[in-house]
This record gives sequence, C-alpha cells and structure tokens, in this order.
Amino acid sequence: EDVVSNDLYPDTADPSWMAGSAMADDLMRSLGGGRPWVLMEQAPAHVNWRDQNVTKAPGVMRLRSLQALARGADGLLFFQWRASRAGAERHHSGMVPHAGTRTRTWREVVGLGAELVRCDELLGSRVAADVAVLFDWHNLWAMESRTKPSNTLAVMDGVRAVHRALFDANRTVDFAHPEADLSAYRVVIAPTLYLTSEETGNNLRRFVEGGGILVLTFFSGIVDVNDHVRLGGYPAQWRALLGLTVDEVAPQPEARVRDVATEDGERFGSRLWSDLITLEGATAIASYADDAYPGGPAVTEHAFGRGLALYLGTQLDPVGMRWMVRRAAALARLPDEAGLPAGVEVVRRSREGATWTIVLNYSGSSVEISVDRPSVDLLTGAAWSTAVAVGPRDAVVLRAEG
Amino acid sequence: EDVVSNDLYPDTADPSWMAGSAMADDLMRSLGGGRPWVLMEQAPAHVNWRDQNVTKAPGVMRLRSLQALARGADGLLFFQWRASRAGAERHHSGMVPHAGTRTRTWREVVGLGAELVRCDELLGSRVAADVAVLFDWHNLWAMESRTKPSNTLAVMDGVRAVHRALFDANRTVDFAHPEADLSAYRVVIAPTLYLTSEETGNNLRRFVEGGGILVLTFFSGIVDVNDHVRLGGYPAQWRALLGLTVDEVAPQPEARVRDVATEDGERFGSRLWSDLITLEGATAIASYADDAYPGGPAVTEHAFGRGLALYLGTQLDPVGMRWMVRRAAALARLPDEAGLPAGVEVVRRSREGATWTIVLNYSGSSVEISVDRPSVDLLTGAAWSTAVAVGPRDAVVLRAEG
Amino acid sequence: EDVVSNDLYPDTADPSWMAGSAMADDLMRSLGGGRPWVLMEQAPAHVNWRDQNVTKAPGVMRLRSLQALARGADGLLFFQWRASRAGAERHHSGMVPHAGTRTRTWREVVGLGAELVRCDELLGSRVAADVAVLFDWHNLWAMESRTKPSNTLAVMDGVRAVHRALFDANRTVDFAHPEADLSAYRVVIAPTLYLTSEETGNNLRRFVEGGGILVLTFFSGIVDVNDHVRLGGYPAQWRALLGLTVDEVAPQPEARVRDVATEDGERFGSRLWSDLITLEGATAIASYADDAYPGGPAVTEHAFGRGLALYLGTQLDPVGMRWMVRRAAALARLPDEAGLPAGVEVVRRSREGATWTIVLNYSGSSVEISVDRPSVDLLTGAAWSTAVAVGPRDAVVLRAEG
Repeated sequence: EDVVSNDLYPDTADPSWMAGSAMADDLMRSLGGGRPWVLMEQAPAHVNWRDQNVTKAPGVMRLRSLQALARGADGLLFFQWRASRAGAERHHSGMVPHAGTRTRTWREVVGLGAELVRCDELLGSRVAADVAVLFDWHNLWAMESRTKPSNTLAVMDGVRAVHRALFDANRTVDFAHPEADLSAYRVVIAPTLYLTSEETGNNLRRFVEGGGILVLTFFSGIVDVNDHVRLGGYPAQWRALLGLTVDEVAPQPEARVRDVATEDGERFGSRLWSDLITLEGATAIASYADDAYPGGPAVTEHAFGRGLALYLGTQLDPVGMRWMVRRAAALARLPDEAGLPAGVEVVRRSREGATWTIVLNYSGSSVEISVDRPSVDLLTGAAWSTAVAVGPRDAVVLRAEG
Repeated sequence: EDVVSNDLYPDTADPSWMAGSAMADDLMRSLGGGRPWVLMEQAPAHVNWRDQNVTKAPGVMRLRSLQALARGADGLLFFQWRASRAGAERHHSGMVPHAGTRTRTWREVVGLGAELVRCDELLGSRVAADVAVLFDWHNLWAMESRTKPSNTLAVMDGVRAVHRALFDANRTVDFAHPEADLSAYRVVIAPTLYLTSEETGNNLRRFVEGGGILVLTFFSGIVDVNDHVRLGGYPAQWRALLGLTVDEVAPQPEARVRDVATEDGERFGSRLWSDLITLEGATAIASYADDAYPGGPAVTEHAFGRGLALYLGTQLDPVGMRWMVRRAAALARLPDEAGLPAGVEVVRRSREGATWTIVLNYSGSSVEISVDRPSVDLLTGAAWSTAVAVGPRDAVVLRAEG
Repeated sequence: EDVVSNDLYPDTADPSWMAGSAMADDLMRSLGGGRPWVLMEQAPAHVNWRDQNVTKAPGVMRLRSLQALARGADGLLFFQWRASRAGAERHHSGMVPHAGTRTRTWREVVGLGAELVRCDELLGSRVAADVAVLFDWHNLWAMESRTKPSNTLAVMDGVRAVHRALFDANRTVDFAHPEADLSAYRVVIAPTLYLTSEETGNNLRRFVEGGGILVLTFFSGIVDVNDHVRLGGYPAQWRALLGLTVDEVAPQPEARVRDVATEDGERFGSRLWSDLITLEGATAIASYADDAYPGGPAVTEHAFGRGLALYLGTQLDPVGMRWMVRRAAALARLPDEAGLPAGVEVVRRSREGATWTIVLNYSGSSVEISVDRPSVDLLTGAAWSTAVAVGPRDAVVLRAEG
C-alpha cells in the first residue's frame, strides 16, 4: 500500500469528538509506518446519514483540519465540492452550499485554503511518539466470536479507553502491530490482546527485558493464532514476564462497579471484569476494596530484565486509566507533560532539525502555552518568545526559530 | 372516490386520545371536500392487536361516537356485531360481548342507537372552518427518504403538533392540499412542506397577497416535485414572500432544548432544528435566548401584499405552538374563542340557516358553556337559553332555535 | 419416558437464582410423577453463551448441587470434564479448568464428589408436597397467540410468581396436569389456565367438592381445547364453582399499579389486569382501593361442596401473592411453617419410615434451625438433638434417628 488515506466524519455534536478523530489520525499515520497520509474526505459542515446531522459550529471545520495536519496529514480534502441538487447525497454539505457563496461554510473553506498555503513547509515531516498502543486486526476479528466469557467486552472499547487516557495526558501515540519492532518506544500498552502468536509472546518479553515499560490488560494471551486456548493458567505466554497466574477469568455483572484502591492512596472504579490473580513475584499496586468475588490484586507490577511489566485485571474507569498512564510515564522517565489547560491539544511534527508545534484550542477561552524556543506562527506570521496566546477555538502552527 | 370512510381505533388509555381522533376526523372530512363521511369501524370496547388492549371506560365509546358526528360523520358503525368465538379476532370486542346482553358494552351500544335516531336532522350538514392545515401525501412520502438532515423529523409529528395546538384552542380546522383554492380560509398553516410544486409556490403567494395569514414551518419549499433541491438559499420559492433567506438548515442534538424569547415577552422551548436565518425585510418576533449555534431569529413575520407570512425556523414546544396559534388568529381577526374549560370540545355543523352545536365534556366535572341563542338539546329535549350545563363525560347536541 | 433429566444453568449473578432452580427441579420431579430424576448438565463455574458469563462464587456450585438432591435428583453431572482448548465451547467451564488442578473449581468438584458418596442412602427416596400448581404445555402454547387482550401477560410469569410466593413460604410444591388426580393435595393453584378441557372443568370442581382449596387466577377457563371461546360470561366452566361472573376482561396500562385492600386489613399493589367481576354467591375478600375502571372485587372466595374456591382477578404484587399463599394454607389447615431465616431452604425426602431433611443456607450468616427428632448430618457425621447450626453458604443433610 503506497498511500494511506481516510474518510472521517466525526460527529462534532459529541463534545469529545476531537479525542476520537485524534485516535483515527494516529491509526492512519501508524498504518503507513509514520509516513504522511491524506484526509481524503471530510464534511465542510454536515453529513446526511446520521439520524440527526448536526452541522459543525463556526471554526470547528478549521480546527479539525489543522488537527489532521498536526497528526501527520499532508493532504486535506472535502466531500463534496458543490452540494448536489439531486441524488442520495443531495443533503450532504459541500464546499459550495445550496445557498451559494453567501454562506459561512464557503467563507470558512476559502479561509482554510489560504492558511494551508502557508503551511507548505510541513510537507513530509513526521510525528514522533514515545508510546505505542498494540493493535492487531486478527485479534479484533477473533474477539467478535460470540462464545466468550463476555460479549460486552469489545477490543475497540479497550483501545479507545487507553487512547483517551493518553490523549487527555497529551501523550502522542503510535499504534503498532504486536510483532513489530518496539525498540523506539519507552511505553507499550496492549489492551485485550486475546489472540497472540508465539512471536508476539517473544516480542513483548524482549521489549521489557530491554528496559521497556509494558502495560497489558485482562484477557490477553489467551489463545494462539488458531484460536486454541493456551493451557496451564492465563496468560500462559507471559506468566513469567508478569510474575503471576490468572486462575479464573471473571466477568462481572454489567451494572456492578467495584472500587479499586492503589498502594499510593488513589481510589477509583472498575467494571466488566475481575481476574482472579495469584501473585508469583509481582506486586499488587492496586487491589479490590470490596468483598465481591474474586477479590485481591487488580493491578500488578513486575520487574523483568531491565524493564517492568504491569497487568490490569479489570477495566479501570477514566480516572483509573489516567492514573495508569501517569504511572507508566513516570516509570519510563518520559518528560513531564506540564498540565495543559482543558480543551487544548499540542502535537509536534519535525524533519532534519526543523520542528513545528501545532497548538489547538477547542475551548471557549483564550489560553497561554509556554514554548521552549522563540517561534513564529505560520498562520499569522506573529512571533512568540516564551509563550504563545491562542484565542478561543483558534490554533497556531509554530515553527521553532534557531 | 364517492364515499370517504375510516376505521379508527384510538387507544383511549392515552389521556389525550380525543385530540388524535379529532385530527383523523378532520382529515376524513377534508378528503371529501367537506362532504359527510362514515366512521365505518370502531370498537365497542377493546381491540385485540395492541400489547395491552385497554377497554374503553364507561361513556367513552359514546363520547367518541358523538365526536365523529360533530366533525362531519353521517354514519357510525362498529366492528363487530357479535364477539366471535373463534378465529384471529375472537378477543376483539363486539356489540354483543362473549358474556352476552347482560353487559355494560351491550347497554351502551343500545343507548347510543337510541340517541342517534334523535340526531337524524344533522344528516348532510357541514362543518365550517376558518383555518386550513396544508397536507400532501407526496410530501409525506418524500420525507420518508433516509438521507435527510434529520431522520427524527417526521411530517406527521409536525402536523400533529399544529393540529393539537389548534384543537387545544378549539379552532375548527380543515386539511387542504397545497394547490387547493385557499380563499375560504383566513389562516393557513403549512408544517414542513418539504416537497412543493411551482403551483404551490404561487398559490401560497396569492393567498398572502389577498390578505391571508400564512404560517410556514422549517424545511419547507426545499425540493421540487422531482426531489431536486432549489438552489440559492432556502426556501427559494418563498424568500420574497417571507422576507428572509435560510442559509443553513441546522438539526439540533436530539436531547437539546433551546429557549426562545418572543418580542411580546413570552418564553418557551424549542428543539430538533434551528434554521440560520438572514432577515431580508422580515421582523424577528422570537429569537433564541442561548448562545448555541446558530442563534438569531427563531420566528419571523413579514408583510406581503395585504397579508402576512410567518416563518418558524424550529420546532416550538406545545406552549410555543399555542402562542403561535393565538398570534395567527389575532392577526386574522378570527372571533375570539372565549376560554373553554379544560377537557371540553365544541364543534358546529350547519345547513341552510340551521346550526347545531355539539358540546363534548371529556372531563370528570360538570361544566357550563354559554350559548349565543336559545337552543334545544336533541339528545334529551331540554331547552337552554343563555348557557348549557354538561355533566361529567356527557355531551349535548344543541339546535339553535330562531 | 423412562428417565427425566435436565440441563440447567442458572445465572447465579441473579441474587434469587435459587428460586428459579427450585422451580425447575420441582417441574422435573413432577414430570416423572415424583420419581427421582437426573441433573444431567450443570456448569462447574461459568457458561459461555450469556453476554456476561459471571462465574459461580465459592460454595455456590455445591449449594446448587445439594438443592437438586433435596428436590429429588438421584444423579448430579457436569458439562464438561475438561475445559476444551478449541471449539465453540472452549470458554465454557469444565471440572478441570484451563489452569488445571491448581484451581478452586477443581477443588470444589472433588469436594462435592466426596460428599455425595455419603448421601447414597437417599437414592430412590421421594419428596412429598401438599400443594400443587397446575401446568399444561397446551395452555402455554395457546397463550403464545398474539391476538389476545394482553401480550404482556405470559403464562410462565404467572407460574413463576405463584411458585416464588410458595418458595418464599418454604412450601414444597408439585406441578400437576389439570386433568391429573389431585386428591393427594390440599391446595391447588392454577395460574392463568386459559385453555381448558371439559375434563379439567370437572376435575377442579371435584377437587373443591371433596374439600380442596383451589386458587384460580384471571383469564382462566376462557377457551376450550380448540381455542374457541366459551360464551356466557367468563369463566363459563367455573361460574358456579367460583360464585361469580367475569363480565369484562380488562388489561390495565402497563405502568399502572392499582392498590388492593383486603377485608383483613392488608394492602398491596396489583397490575396488568383487572377483571370486572359480578358476585353471584362469592365474597370479595380484597377490592380495588382506587376509582379506576373497573373497580370492585379483586379477589373472591366461595364455598363449594366441602371446599373453597378463590379467584384472583388481577396480578398481585409479591406482597399480595404471599398473602394469598398464607390464606390458602390457613384455609387448608396446612402445618404452620415457623418462619425460617431469610435465605434458608428446607426440603425433605423420605422412603419407608426414613426421612432426610436437607437444609440449605444461601445467606452470609450462620443460622439455627430446630429439628423434630435427633438427627445426624450425613455430610459431617455430626449429631444434632433439638436444633442444627448451619454456617454461611453451608448445608446439612440430616437423617432423623429413631
């Protein structure tokens, strides 16, 4: 495959739409091994195939376009040029609406075009990530079988929960195949990697041995590539790596929320699943705080080689997922991400010594973001020395100077 | 079509069932151009095809029958004579129930028969209306397409909302085809007339030019009879008539309720949709009172010829719909409907100088209704001079004397 | 049919699972006319075909197995021996789990096997019941027709409600066919026996004439074996027996709960249905306490021969069902069941002078249960004189001595 492209139509009526489109962008970039990709279709305003097709509010189409640019897109296209008079897509928005060029939509499209010209120098630059999330289509398909301990458990839900916690921490993330070379990453997270090859087993062991921080979640390493269960205590490939055995997989009643308390004094909820874990060298860094069955360790940590392997035996709630991401980042000594204001996203692209920092402010308030080096905003030409001010629903594309 | 007849089985477990049956009756009468029609099937007590088939409470079958009479029916029949012992409809009620003539159902059917004989003189008389609601089956079918800005928006919901507001104001209403001669009406309301012919465009313009009051609701005049969008700003046929352009159609998230404030100090909710309106001569008589997109005018008014054209860019809640009906009636100088007690319906039939006033009291309390002229109740023979007393769940059929 | 066996997989995530399995066991025993039966399949831990397959908590598999033994099972088997590595049932639990013999599941299975050996002497013994619930598959099938007064009304819901009230009162119950010899029972309850033969009509009359206490619930005796309605007032076969006529069957709106007040001062809710009852000799022992239609008698009682026939014209809530069971037991002078602690089940098996009392304690607290005679617990060999102590989630199998 020479060119990776995507048609993406986030529902911007969902206040967290930008988390979903960020994940899709990261996946597209990762499919091409980090090569720039093309956003081949997006809607100038609204689509016509949802039950309620809410239009993008002023500025949203521009923010979304610059988000794709930030996450590695070298092309941004629309479906469709002119809103058609007839046919099945006659009520889909176009760059030229039915009402013509008198419209906000048309003005926003023209404005975006003028801005993109000023960003030409980003073409071909890349996005670097310290963290990888493992993703394998064969695992996704295997998990679609209906005869599992839980049909409520879906791979994509787990992947989204992990990516969302990383997005909220402003950690830039690649997706990687479980057999891929992981040496470029310092943290690898594997949400529900149910079906795994022998090579995947070795690969994750090598990654941790070499000093990596691995986070594995429940119902991983259960079956081989023929969907045959590995016997002798789950996850058979990784019992030594994780320092534990899962004796029973225990889905929880759908409405049950179980409290989890960490060794460092945090407390949050968990649901859906509670592995019965026997520690065999690992430490319980979080445990169930109620008396439901099974109790005991909820999250464990185990030194292996020069690295550490964490295991989550349950689905943590968003607070718990953020705790897990903070812990993994600290263990990997990733640079501390100073707290960004809510609703702000920062992503970097770079190429041979040149770095661009794209700041997207989805919020309704102006924000000030500190910058490492004096920078110039390509969109406006404005120069910033120690910090950059970004207005509500506005963005900057900063080139570091010297 | 020589004879218009209807099979109607309102679910009287719904406390507002009479609003629904009133609308069905008005539609049947209008299909025949005002000619009397026949209620060919109704249930003496309960049907057998709902999940819970709640029986009509005492007196309800009689009130429903007299309602159909009031709204133009010249025949009232039942399905079925004798509740059958066998077959798919063995649990559907009949005039003679399984328990025979010892039953309330049988007594009520016999009682109704005796009353109807006394109403013979109404045969052939007509119901007059000042207000028309436009209705076109082709529009209904076109709106069933799934590729629209909103699939939650249904023509019948809008028609019901308009008819209900008129019913609550005790305004007698005809349905009319959009190309029909509208000169007999002083107010015409067109709920979501999405697909329209050129002739419909001209017809509504003529109606307003001639002094009529037109109320048009959102997503009207969008496509021609081939379902091809009219370009250049919605609704292209009527921009001059309405004094505005709709630049964007903006469905709202389904759960969102937006406040609307009127120029005369009223405030109510709206939902489902918010057109982005540019005023081009019209006045905003109600506007959005929040900062959601798009803001601005919600309801507009525009003088055109000797009449006025109102436009609703959103779905008003029931309070808002009643405000709209009051305003249109005042603009058209319709006779002021003195407030009727809640749960009372008054309809007139007339023929060459003779007028009958049917008063239906669905409530559990006795009510007193003033009458213009001395009248006689055909059902009881009682004479009334300035007012008539109607008992709980009772009705009168008054003939004006002299 | 020589051997009755059942595959039963109660969802033990439902806190009242034991009521459901008790009913299934009673039905299995009754299908064989009281002969011992075989629990051919049960899960050692979890199944794999629900959406969330919650595992049995520690001790639950043993309690469930001993419950089946108590209610007449002479064989207890599992599906499956070894949790399979492959195939559609690879995630169904087995006696030997994927994790092998290191597991709790394996230890519990081995423990149960050792206990069952000590219970050999119960083989062939029988369970005696004073109460029968009438059940007929043809009635069940007939009620699946969609053209009934209520599709919300399901035979099994009524059967479960009756059995649950009896289970909560610790009344041991047989199921019986409506044409079966009922002379061994003192109370017979017939929930929604819609389709009935002439012989069933006679059989219930004979039972009451002979001194039995019959409880019949609404929509019974409506049609003959050809699904043809019996005319002349419901239930035509039993109007003389019940001392009443049902003139109208009146399903209620699904959300409506109607208060019922009894002549002895109790008050509870009813729903789904309210027959319009004309008393013709019967006494109203409970009536509707609101003014909804139809009002009047909700539960009636009528002396017939040497017995009594009760009729329920509505679906009582669980409090009402327990009131009804208490009343029927008192009328039949059944031995007073001294209140058992919540979560405790007691069932007896016997054979030629030997009696075994199985006490199952599903609760999390220790309980003390009085015993008639000195007894020995087969499971532990412990001897008890006037009372037996049973620990939380524990059980005893007592043999009365002398």
